[in-house]
Amino acid sequence: MITRMSELFLRTLRDDPADAEVASHKLLIRAGYVRPVGPGLYSWLPLGLKVLRKIEGIVRDEMTAIGGQEILFPALLPRAPYETTNRWTEYGDTLFRLQDRRDNDYLLGPTHEEMFTLTVKGEYSSYKDFPLILFQIQNKYRDEARPRAGILRGREFLMKDSYSFDIDDDGLKNAYHAHREAYQRIFARLGVRYVIVSAVSGAMGGSASEEFLAESEVGEDTYVRCLESGYAANVEAVITAVPESIPLDGLPEATVYETGDTPTIATLVEWANGAGLGRTVTAADTLKNVLLKTRTPGGEWELLAVGVPGDREVDDKRLGAALEPAEYAMLDDADFARYPFLKKGYIGPKGLLANGVRYLVDPRVVDGTAWITGADEVGKHVVDLVAGRDFTPDGTIEAAEVREGDPSPDGAGPLVAARGIEIGHVFQLGRKYADAFTADVLGEDGKPVRLTMGSYGIGVSRMVAVIAEQQHDELGLRWPAAVSPFDVHVVIANKDAEARAGATELAADLDRLGADVLLDDRSASPGVKFKDAELLGVPWIVVVGRGWADGVVELRDRFTGEKRDVAVDAAATEILAAIG
Amino acid sequence: MITRMSELFLRTLRDDPADAEVASHKLLIRAGYVRPVGPGLYSWLPLGLKVLRKIEGIVRDEMTAIGGQEILFPALLPRAPYETTNRWTEYGDTLFRLQDRRDNDYLLGPTHEEMFTLTVKGEYSSYKDFPLILFQIQNKYRDEARPRAGILRGREFLMKDSYSFDIDDDGLKNAYHAHREAYQRIFARLGVRYVIVSAVSGAMGGSASEEFLAESEVGEDTYVRCLESGYAANVEAVITAVPESIPLDGLPEATVYETGDTPTIATLVEWANGAGLGRTVTAADTLKNVLLKTRTPGGEWELLAVGVPGDREVDDKRLGAALEPAEYAMLDDADFARYPFLKKGYIGPKGLLANGVRYLVDPRVVDGTAWITGADEVGKHVVDLVAGRDFTPDGTIEAAEVREGDPSPDGAGPLVAARGIEIGHVFQLGRKYADAFTADVLGEDGKPVRLTMGSYGIGVSRMVAVIAEQQHDELGLRWPAAVSPFDVHVVIANKDAEARAGATELAADLDRLGADVLLDDRSASPGVKFKDAELLGVPWIVVVGRGWADGVVELRDRFTGEKRDVAVDAAATEILAAIG
Repeated sequence: MITRMSELFLRTLRDDPADAEVASHKLLIRAGYVRPVGPGLYSWLPLGLKVLRKIEGIVRDEMTAIGGQEILFPALLPRAPYETTNRWTEYGDTLFRLQDRRDNDYLLGPTHEEMFTLTVKGEYSSYKDFPLILFQIQNKYRDEARPRAGILRGREFLMKDSYSFDIDDDGLKNAYHAHREAYQRIFARLGVRYVIVSAVSGAMGGSASEEFLAESEVGEDTYVRCLESGYAANVEAVITAVPESIPLDGLPEATVYETGDTPTIATLVEWANGAGLGRTVTAADTLKNVLLKTRTPGGEWELLAVGVPGDREVDDKRLGAALEPAEYAMLDDADFARYPFLKKGYIGPKGLLANGVRYLVDPRVVDGTAWITGADEVGKHVVDLVAGRDFTPDGTIEAAEVREGDPSPDGAGPLVAARGIEIGHVFQLGRKYADAFTADVLGEDGKPVRLTMGSYGIGVSRMVAVIAEQQHDELGLRWPAAVSPFDVHVVIANKDAEARAGATELAADLDRLGADVLLDDRSASPGVKFKDAELLGVPWIVVVGRGWADGVVELRDRFTGEKRDVAVDAAATEILAAIG
Repeated sequence: MITRMSELFLRTLRDDPADAEVASHKLLIRAGYVRPVGPGLYSWLPLGLKVLRKIEGIVRDEMTAIGGQEILFPALLPRAPYETTNRWTEYGDTLFRLQDRRDNDYLLGPTHEEMFTLTVKGEYSSYKDFPLILFQIQNKYRDEARPRAGILRGREFLMKDSYSFDIDDDGLKNAYHAHREAYQRIFARLGVRYVIVSAVSGAMGGSASEEFLAESEVGEDTYVRCLESGYAANVEAVITAVPESIPLDGLPEATVYETGDTPTIATLVEWANGAGLGRTVTAADTLKNVLLKTRTPGGEWELLAVGVPGDREVDDKRLGAALEPAEYAMLDDADFARYPFLKKGYIGPKGLLANGVRYLVDPRVVDGTAWITGADEVGKHVVDLVAGRDFTPDGTIEAAEVREGDPSPDGAGPLVAARGIEIGHVFQLGRKYADAFTADVLGEDGKPVRLTMGSYGIGVSRMVAVIAEQQHDELGLRWPAAVSPFDVHVVIANKDAEARAGATELAADLDRLGADVLLDDRSASPGVKFKDAELLGVPWIVVVGRGWADGVVELRDRFTGEKRDVAVDAAATEILAAIG
């Protein structure tokens, strides 16, 4: 196929769009791949759509290879199934809701667990029907609070979502690993640099979960990894390396001190270092107790205290993930007023536990660790309050911030932080949705078996931006051959009629040999054409220029910038051989 | 590719679904091609999706062949452009509207004229950039009052919509004819029986317009055609054959009669035939004046009277189309009370015209025709009121019902009525949308040129039902090869291990030769398998049955029902040759 730029619906822009922040967004707009239609809403122009479809094709190919069967749901869905799983409410403002002419409630599907579960329940009835993997490639809708960075986080976006259905945990594990490997093949074919990180469930519920993050400084997801061992996890999923517990024998007694006006960690540490305790105290020696209230869906609010070393903040994302699916909120002044035993700035484990407040601590608060913390009276703190001796918390919680340099949970070395863009998610849902819809089939023994599920997503439209983000250079886009809108970009940079005719013939030869050719036959100057070729990012550029008179054309590698002359006589075959 | 039915996500149903009315709906559900999700909302199971994609591919292919360039808009669209064209309001309840988390208004696109116009205006600026044809294949949303007949009229449906942009009328005509021919090729490839009928614009505004209607008794569109000349038009577009006008000389004088209590056509005719007028009077000799009020968008209501021969009703669809884009409503009692000169049952042309009411008549009311009609006083009618002598209406209107036997407007013979399903629409929009958005480009003479547009649609998902509707028989579906989910359906109807192995090998041979094979390797009985094969509708069925022992398999043509034996030795090549 030959596409003539003189006829192609394309206008490149010289300047970056005013509201674009990240390189992929700027370049995809400048190169005429996409256009904004509204916040988080984009149209795909011809070149952008070609890249999108190629990515979609690779994803479909690998999903089919692991036995996935493609089906397709509506994007417009009735409320009832999402009411059953409570996601109609849980999704909050992120869900696009609407009503039809009869005032019935509908939503635009953000993800389709409910529909797939109901469909499998509707069609299948026996253990013999499993394992089963179904997938769709479909527009999803999420009303993001801050749609950003172009198609990196749109409000309408193309996603591949698949779901595995099995009758036992082994089946689920097989499906999970098949997906994990398929995703590795997909991202390899797309030429994406990525890491697989341990993840927690978010709003989806369930157990084992990993995210595929494309390495990118503009990513919204922070993750940490241990360079020594390869351990990687997103911040929500980092498991704190737990120090060994300390024998209680011989530890100093807990002592309550008048500490004056010391409601903050800083003032407390300052007091401690002036109090003649015989050692240097840092914030890490103090135990900060943060008061929250939590509520399970439909339940009552109840108090929760979280104890973390005073040198660390509570990380909202980690806290939220740890409490999922319960809601939580910080205590406000009115709440404090309601519980007079809570002395703000002086709250300690003993008062909390004595008053029946659920008390969870950072995993570093192991038995035998001694803390400086509140003594439950204004102006008083306790020193050497020992966990496991003076107080026993109700459990631990992964809520403290993760910092670079923290030890990796596998003990192999320190953690380093990086940013990434979520491109895939594999997730053992388990029986959450099957329970919600009583998705049972007849087992081998004639008794009902509850199905177990996995859910697996790839952001297909997002991949266009991710590849642009990772591969671009200062001149423009650069597409790996597998997703490039064209195989080769032939630039006519010579006004001579014979050269023009020769270029057209060369394009025809390349086409005949199976290449998808973009032919720049416009009347623009060579300079303009070269700039556009660099901006558009087809991996191989053939310049029919001055060398024509000497019987050569120039072949440029857009990735390396290398140029070499190729004899016109055998140009088509030689070019195709070069570009693979 | 080989798909094993033992692994395929498919359950056929023995019974028709309770709420299904038309054959295609029943069969597509029974055969497991689609499943209902809500009113007018369907999921596509693997076989249905394969057919849908094949149809989509043929449509894309022919659109590309006429130079169409594919792009893709969001389905979720901001209100503003649709406000500019007033379609935000005009679409009424058919438009799905919603708000985002910031209470901004959005809609689910029913069709995309606005977006395409704005995009072309944004990218292109010179006459040199045209002609241009853009298209997309995308989900559309319409909140139909009565979603019916399965995917024949869904609320979310896949549509190909294309738009042509030209700088002059000749360009528009070329684009229109290119589309018309592309559509003929598409429907021929899909094996659909159809007619092309003249159409009027509906809510779209504009001029020349034709519809492609698939012939079907379950169609919602009534059209008429003249078997002698081939003239065909949908009911809204039928142009009344106008009789010749009659010289006014020597026509009898108009006379007002006391007609008593004769407010209806029936009572008036009865009076006339008892009044000694010296001729037999029928309803066709009377002129019935129907009172309406109309309003242009944003305008005031104003009176309109429509005069039609008393033997015909005013057809709502024709009236609405004739008044487009104005709204209209019948006069209610309160309205009549406001205009005392309107004597219900006795309204006549003279009173209407004397009081300044706009008065449009059926085209049959030509000069010289004499009518029995109201005399604007209760209990009085006028006889021999002659058009062009005693009254001159403000114009004509195509609002009277069309009946079988009416003369064709080309004079070639009578019209006959039939029903069809709209599958395509080609439409010269003209400058309506370009005017709304000031879509001008620089002309050859340096002055701005307003673009002129065409819009062209094909209901892609609807085609699945249309083909099923036209091609099915009493046993099930029957797919033309071009859209069948598989090329050949191999049924293992022999429990012998050697026969089973041979069938699997035959399937592998067919696959190697490029066929897409469905292999029924289930443990079900031959009877169940045959029934399923007939229901699923793959055009060629190979039965590996009793003949295996004699070295033959049976090849069945699903369309003709013909069966013949093929020798096993060369079965694959012979079968492929037979099925083309």
